[in-house]
Amino acid sequence: MKTYKVNEFIMRYSIGNPFATEVVVNKGEEINRKDIDYFQIDEKKGFRFSHKMDPRDIVWGLGENQRGMNKRGGIYISYCTDDSQHTPDKKSLYGAHNFLIVDGEVKFGVFVDYPSKVTFDIGFTHSDVLDIVIDGEDFDLYIVEGVSLKEITGQFLNMIGEGYAPPKWAFGYQQSRWSYKNAEEIEKIVDSFLHYDIPCDTVYLDIDYMERFKDFTIDEESFPHIEGFVKRIKNKGFRLIPIIDAGVKIEKDYDIYEEGIANDHFCVNEEGKPFVAAVWPGRVHFPDFLRPETRKWFGLKYSRLIDWGIEGFWNDMNEPAIFYSNKGLQKAVEKAKASENENLDIYSYFELRDTFVGLLNKLEDHKDFYHRVEGKLVRHDLLHNLYGYNMTRAAAEGFEEIQPNKRFLLFSRASYVGGHRYGGIWTGDNHSWWQHLLLNIKMMVSLNMCGFLYSGADTGGFSGDVNAQLMIRWMQFSLFTPLFRNHSAMGTRRQEPFAFDEGTLHILRNTIRIRYALIPYIYSEYMKALIHKNVYIASLAFEYDDTRSRTVEDQLLIGDSLMIAPIYEENAVGRYIWLPEDMLLWKAEDYRNRSYEIYKKGNIYLEVDIQEIPIFVRKNKIVLLGKHGSSVENLCHDELEAIAFVDDKAAYVYYDDDGTTKNYKNKKYNEVFIEIEKVKNDFEITITNRGNDTLKKINFEILDIQGNVNKKTVEVS
Amino acid sequence: MKTYKVNEFIMRYSIGNPFATEVVVNKGEEINRKDIDYFQIDEKKGFRFSHKMDPRDIVWGLGENQRGMNKRGGIYISYCTDDSQHTPDKKSLYGAHNFLIVDGEVKFGVFVDYPSKVTFDIGFTHSDVLDIVIDGEDFDLYIVEGVSLKEITGQFLNMIGEGYAPPKWAFGYQQSRWSYKNAEEIEKIVDSFLHYDIPCDTVYLDIDYMERFKDFTIDEESFPHIEGFVKRIKNKGFRLIPIIDAGVKIEKDYDIYEEGIANDHFCVNEEGKPFVAAVWPGRVHFPDFLRPETRKWFGLKYSRLIDWGIEGFWNDMNEPAIFYSNKGLQKAVEKAKASENENLDIYSYFELRDTFVGLLNKLEDHKDFYHRVEGKLVRHDLLHNLYGYNMTRAAAEGFEEIQPNKRFLLFSRASYVGGHRYGGIWTGDNHSWWQHLLLNIKMMVSLNMCGFLYSGADTGGFSGDVNAQLMIRWMQFSLFTPLFRNHSAMGTRRQEPFAFDEGTLHILRNTIRIRYALIPYIYSEYMKALIHKNVYIASLAFEYDDTRSRTVEDQLLIGDSLMIAPIYEENAVGRYIWLPEDMLLWKAEDYRNRSYEIYKKGNIYLEVDIQEIPIFVRKNKIVLLGKHGSSVENLCHDELEAIAFVDDKAAYVYYDDDGTTKNYKNKKYNEVFIEIEKVKNDFEITITNRGNDTLKKINFEILDIQGNVNKKTVEVS
Repeated sequence: MKTYKVNEFIMRYSIGNPFATEVVVNKGEEINRKDIDYFQIDEKKGFRFSHKMDPRDIVWGLGENQRGMNKRGGIYISYCTDDSQHTPDKKSLYGAHNFLIVDGEVKFGVFVDYPSKVTFDIGFTHSDVLDIVIDGEDFDLYIVEGVSLKEITGQFLNMIGEGYAPPKWAFGYQQSRWSYKNAEEIEKIVDSFLHYDIPCDTVYLDIDYMERFKDFTIDEESFPHIEGFVKRIKNKGFRLIPIIDAGVKIEKDYDIYEEGIANDHFCVNEEGKPFVAAVWPGRVHFPDFLRPETRKWFGLKYSRLIDWGIEGFWNDMNEPAIFYSNKGLQKAVEKAKASENENLDIYSYFELRDTFVGLLNKLEDHKDFYHRVEGKLVRHDLLHNLYGYNMTRAAAEGFEEIQPNKRFLLFSRASYVGGHRYGGIWTGDNHSWWQHLLLNIKMMVSLNMCGFLYSGADTGGFSGDVNAQLMIRWMQFSLFTPLFRNHSAMGTRRQEPFAFDEGTLHILRNTIRIRYALIPYIYSEYMKALIHKNVYIASLAFEYDDTRSRTVEDQLLIGDSLMIAPIYEENAVGRYIWLPEDMLLWKAEDYRNRSYEIYKKGNIYLEVDIQEIPIFVRKNKIVLLGKHGSSVENLCHDELEAIAFVDDKAAYVYYDDDGTTKNYKNKKYNEVFIEIEKVKNDFEITITNRGNDTLKKINFEILDIQGNVNKKTVEVS
Repeated sequence: MKTYKVNEFIMRYSIGNPFATEVVVNKGEEINRKDIDYFQIDEKKGFRFSHKMDPRDIVWGLGENQRGMNKRGGIYISYCTDDSQHTPDKKSLYGAHNFLIVDGEVKFGVFVDYPSKVTFDIGFTHSDVLDIVIDGEDFDLYIVEGVSLKEITGQFLNMIGEGYAPPKWAFGYQQSRWSYKNAEEIEKIVDSFLHYDIPCDTVYLDIDYMERFKDFTIDEESFPHIEGFVKRIKNKGFRLIPIIDAGVKIEKDYDIYEEGIANDHFCVNEEGKPFVAAVWPGRVHFPDFLRPETRKWFGLKYSRLIDWGIEGFWNDMNEPAIFYSNKGLQKAVEKAKASENENLDIYSYFELRDTFVGLLNKLEDHKDFYHRVEGKLVRHDLLHNLYGYNMTRAAAEGFEEIQPNKRFLLFSRASYVGGHRYGGIWTGDNHSWWQHLLLNIKMMVSLNMCGFLYSGADTGGFSGDVNAQLMIRWMQFSLFTPLFRNHSAMGTRRQEPFAFDEGTLHILRNTIRIRYALIPYIYSEYMKALIHKNVYIASLAFEYDDTRSRTVEDQLLIGDSLMIAPIYEENAVGRYIWLPEDMLLWKAEDYRNRSYEIYKKGNIYLEVDIQEIPIFVRKNKIVLLGKHGSSVENLCHDELEAIAFVDDKAAYVYYDDDGTTKNYKNKKYNEVFIEIEKVKNDFEITITNRGNDTLKKINFEILDIQGNVNKKTVEVS
């Protein structure tokens, strides 16, 4: 083991010869130290790092995973997995996010940079033991120090680099379905949004837009004249977002396949021949995204769709998902044949059945193919967690070449820590279950901690049939997540807002409009979090250190000013809420008719009707909102509303930028500094404008601690 | 449609020629009425009964089902199903319990007596519409009137007849596992309970005790000298509870099989030959439990095990579960063979895979076999929901002949309304998920409403691995359910109390002891509920009619005096509780060291440590407890403790009986009437003893509304 000091907060412990995941750029300076803080190491069975936990320690992190915000009580296996049944016993989802924080009397963060299986046993086997087991002998382990959950998270985010900024329009509401099958259907969806006057920015193209699931093709029967079609839809105010899958269909004369073969871009089997697996297109090869030349080749292919006018993509099936391998299927069929004239005993029968059930995403298949890393073959399972990460990177690197300064929408299903630099993620194939709304709420915190600020779940649930109530409650939550997309599976109940009864449609319309009204705040908070290496969504524990606040798992902080308390239970007519300090409540319904109540620090039971969204403004904080529009680009922000809850004084920095370029990286953005100070019985407002040419005036509603409303309008110059 | 008046509360609407399910004995007197209250009828697609719901109506009932106590928002299909994945989208579990209550400004109950598929769409498709669709043209529909949820439930329970009383020892803690494989393992379990001083009454024999899963056999290698073994275990204070499965193994010279064939006891296929399906023993025939002569034959077979000294059974696989049919398996194998040299497209591949996945409990198989009802063949699927019900009935009728006055422990997996007269039910193959603890909590109410008072879930969860925390929290809940059994599946983490660390063991021991200490109360409340046609477990809405109480789904009333607020969230350090009136809180830990707090009506947040169980005594109510013992039969109830919370006066009827016979049906039980009245600053206690020869004295702890404790001991004569 070698020890490196990355900076004053972070130590790196390097064991063996770690694979260059390229997650951390600054690898630190070697120092002479042979022991590691906080952990006992047992090298016998893999590397096992054990830490004794205090009964009240909370363990945060692990990104995309099951269970609570506090990960205690579970086993989690980092191994990117396409598992469409997110039941609570599942140990792996699509991402591998090996960062956690132990938060108690003693506080520290751990990041394991290892691209294959890592197991976190967080008080499952022994209630008071945190065990991290690494199935390999070459890895980096980082210990991150800090005085608080927030600081440790910040140090970690700082180490892994600046996150991805989507275009501003990607903060609009997004409508998806597996699949809108042809141009007519897309146009009908778009027209319905316009007809029902519901804001929406994008419509998604799931796998059926392609010609037999072939990447970078279009089914010309269903989508004739695609370029003109993209333009027509865009003229109506909507962008089309096509899916790109990892596997490349094996098909003679299909150019991507032919080029891939000709230039050795595909992962290979033991004999060095392209590895064959079956996914949506049937049999495919997998591009070897770990090779820079393959990333470059594949990444530039996106230009084909960009040339149609496409400005955003989602990368899917990149764990990679495997429906079956030739070997697996053959074995299963052999087993079926052999059983034919047998009087199967019950265990043989289950074995036969399970063989077919187990064809999907079979671990053994991962041991049958290889990547070429610097001339050497490396077995896939040993680098597995880097696959989706590098597919997203391929796309991002492609965009960088195609249009270097343009922001594209991009998000992925599979991911590894560091992937946040290239795109966002969505949380995969959830269900229309109330439990998955709650899981969504809880997971947003750990995703943010791992850098995935641009993330969200399939609102309403992907699999299964949603009902109106769940759709409403989920929308009321997702309006606060950067990626706000309604997506659902083939064969399930339609989930577009206008697929429901009139009352529900009315509520959903108002809900989506609230999102658009809040864009000034949401976008400002998102970009500031990105630039300053903060989280955008946090648990209460990030800001409040009292015992109660630290254990609340169903309320969230959204940016710096807001706390939300979503409704996530069927037929609920209200809910309990913990107020860690005095707060202003806005029960949002129609954002244009607002009323407020002040609640004191403490526990409350709040009645919440189906159309109401409890939004809390923190003490001495300000939130900005504008008017809704049919899309983000149609928003007019020359006049904003400010809701402020001021005990003594409050400040807010309203960030904005062009929303389409990367110029913000060169500080080309504008900021409006707002300060409110209570002076005697009045409030003094100071506004300093650094470069915002749009904003002309802000209408303030300032509430004091007694709930008195003070209205003022201030011109911005 | 013919209309019958069953009594002043209940009308029966008879359509077509209903099958004699024998659930309701009093079929009523025909009256001249052609319309039905509350419902619109649409006969076009099956029979559809529609009721327009008010937005605030609550729909209770449906027994064993998913979702909340309030069933609004879901579709439920009554069709007994062996589905081991109780995810929230599942519409059918093991029972078919077609009774529900609409509870709002308008209140009424509905019971659909139809033995095949009934679909309840309770505001899923249209938020405000309750639709009941009956897939047939011959059924009885009952409308039950009453002024309250409690009264309507009572009327329904009264109509369906007096429920099952297990022996008193069946209220002890029960330890199960699939499977304790041999006599040594059983003895080790028993000895461990004794060694660790944990009360326990029974140990279960799951399928492996049989000789190759053959009903009414014993694997003599694993369980030599079974009779002596049963006795030895009983001498240590434990009863063995074997499982009996529905299917009879096809095996020459196996007497049950031979007798069944010889006497035509099995369900037949279209050609009149015994129908073949595969379950645990491999290929089996299904006894035709709908025939009285088959019930009698099968029921008397239990005597074989009773002769060994067995006093309790659980009937399983009686939906009936089918792993595969010959036809199904053959089709699947054919499909696999045909695919062999095909380049399967992805949809054909999924079709192939799904064929194997779908072999289990295939609906089509139900259309391939028949019952013989009064000389006619009736297809199984048309009577499906009566199968498990009649298997349990077969056992109960058998016991009635074998030892007419003895109470046996008996419970079943599949059930139909009316089955509560023959035995209890357990809720089948749940998971070690926190969500299933919550589901268990919610389901107890609807199970009780359908008469299944003796019920409970697999504590700790059947499938999957439990952790210590979930085990503790689940035990802390299950101690209040009549059937209190810890059961888990092969291959999962061991769940016996001593399988955990010492701290957990200590908590579990104390938890189980609380159960035994509460037996005087639990047994008394259970038997009174049974005799008076009440529920034993209820939602708050049964006793409190305010809006808040009506919507609480995570607190329960246990008998007449107690309210509980279980902890069902991982890592929770407390929870919110609604107090519908002032109550006394006993945070139970070690029942011998008790302290109390009085809480006022309203909402509270209560801190609850892992070893604590919040038990609330209602205002003007009394709860009795004794000391724990190693088993129920070892409890000594000559001296009891009474905890009373008295504002003005409280009364309690302490019921007891011999616990082993059915003499209670002839009023041969004893009652102790306890009254406490506040007189000035003191409490007057009056005790009237009707026949209890054991009880000598009661030590009272009486708390007044201010929390003052008043201790008194009263001799009982």
